[in-house]
Amino acid sequence: MSEITLTTYDWVPEMPRGLVRDLRVRWALEEAGLTYQVNSTPFRDRGPEHFAVQPFGQVPWLTDGNLTIFESGAILLHLAEKSRALMPKDPRGRTEVLEWVVAALNSVDLPSQPWALFRFMGYPGESPEAQFMDNFLNARLERMEAVLANREWLAAGRFTVADLLMADVLRQVDRFDGLAKFPACQHYVARSTTRPAFVKAYDDQMAHFAAADAA
Amino acid sequence: MSEITLTTYDWVPEMPRGLVRDLRVRWALEEAGLTYQVNSTPFRDRGPEHFAVQPFGQVPWLTDGNLTIFESGAILLHLAEKSRALMPKDPRGRTEVLEWVVAALNSVDLPSQPWALFRFMGYPGESPEAQFMDNFLNARLERMEAVLANREWLAAGRFTVADLLMADVLRQVDRFDGLAKFPACQHYVARSTTRPAFVKAYDDQMAHFAAADAA
Repeated sequence: MSEITLTTYDWVPEMPRGLVRDLRVRWALEEAGLTYQVNSTPFRDRGPEHFAVQPFGQVPWLTDGNLTIFESGAILLHLAEKSRALMPKDPRGRTEVLEWVVAALNSVDLPSQPWALFRFMGYPGESPEAQFMDNFLNARLERMEAVLANREWLAAGRFTVADLLMADVLRQVDRFDGLAKFPACQHYVARSTTRPAFVKAYDDQMAHFAAADAA
Repeated sequence: MSEITLTTYDWVPEMPRGLVRDLRVRWALEEAGLTYQVNSTPFRDRGPEHFAVQPFGQVPWLTDGNLTIFESGAILLHLAEKSRALMPKDPRGRTEVLEWVVAALNSVDLPSQPWALFRFMGYPGESPEAQFMDNFLNARLERMEAVLANREWLAAGRFTVADLLMADVLRQVDRFDGLAKFPACQHYVARSTTRPAFVKAYDDQMAHFAAADAA
């Protein structure tokens, strides 16, 4: 048995499959070559024992020895400490990874996730609030486009956990065609999500939920 | 001269004063008792040299020796490594701080910041998108209320940088009366923002921008 256990839902509907946030943790574990097992928690009946480890009633969480960690961004930074494949050891490289991880979690995901959820819900998109989020997201994507037009990866001159997270955030925008005007962002998502570790993580998440359909 | 320099705008309009994100960094520096100086960058004309250090054209950024760091959340985690006042050294305490820092940056700020911006803009709030953000924010606040009803501080049994960040996120909701149904969250914001280090940081930010009015 590995020391590392990733917990995700036992099942989710078709629509969010491939987007549940255990995927980014699977991806990091595969990039790092760490051994892990996957546990399930009920999607439909989230009891007190779920809220005790994940206070927002979401997934994933990770157990590593006697530590339990929630928030996928925190899990990624925890795993990054265990593997140079995810983060270099020198202060400048670590700082670059940290600032871009936070940029993905806050500066980019903050407009992109509501924007994607509005589309997911099928809202008409004509309200001032919808227009505001369009402009907010596009302003951030313009800046990401300028950055990614000039470099292959965000931090430390090579692929790190910062790219893993930023690409995972941006591919959810891409899913609703939000990157159409931002070719450097599109190419970045493409070169990130064709990495073997992403492909395995994606296939494993799809198989995990498909197995629950069959059960 | 201190090794640590915090850079913020030279001036901002009245409305965002007291909310510019250099405040949370000032607060952390005061809690940690670290010596620092404050530099200004133009609010009105943001040139290439601004985007070179802060790719989204925002503030703050921090220089610490030969490192420059953007994203206030990343700056807080950087400072937390320098001071036990902000984060304990043991693995469990560090993990708890990390997960709640990310919870503030992503799970809570993600609905709260668009929600607050919609109010700041004075939108009517009747669109499906506005209702969605209301429900999204309230769902997260219900969970924060359950957590804060049972503990004084979020991580490691004492005030840490996770509280500093979460309280700074929640006070922006409080400003638009969004915590009215969440008394534990309100009390948490009150006990955080009456700390001498917050009061000094707040007063210093207000004085910094007021000095620019007079100039």
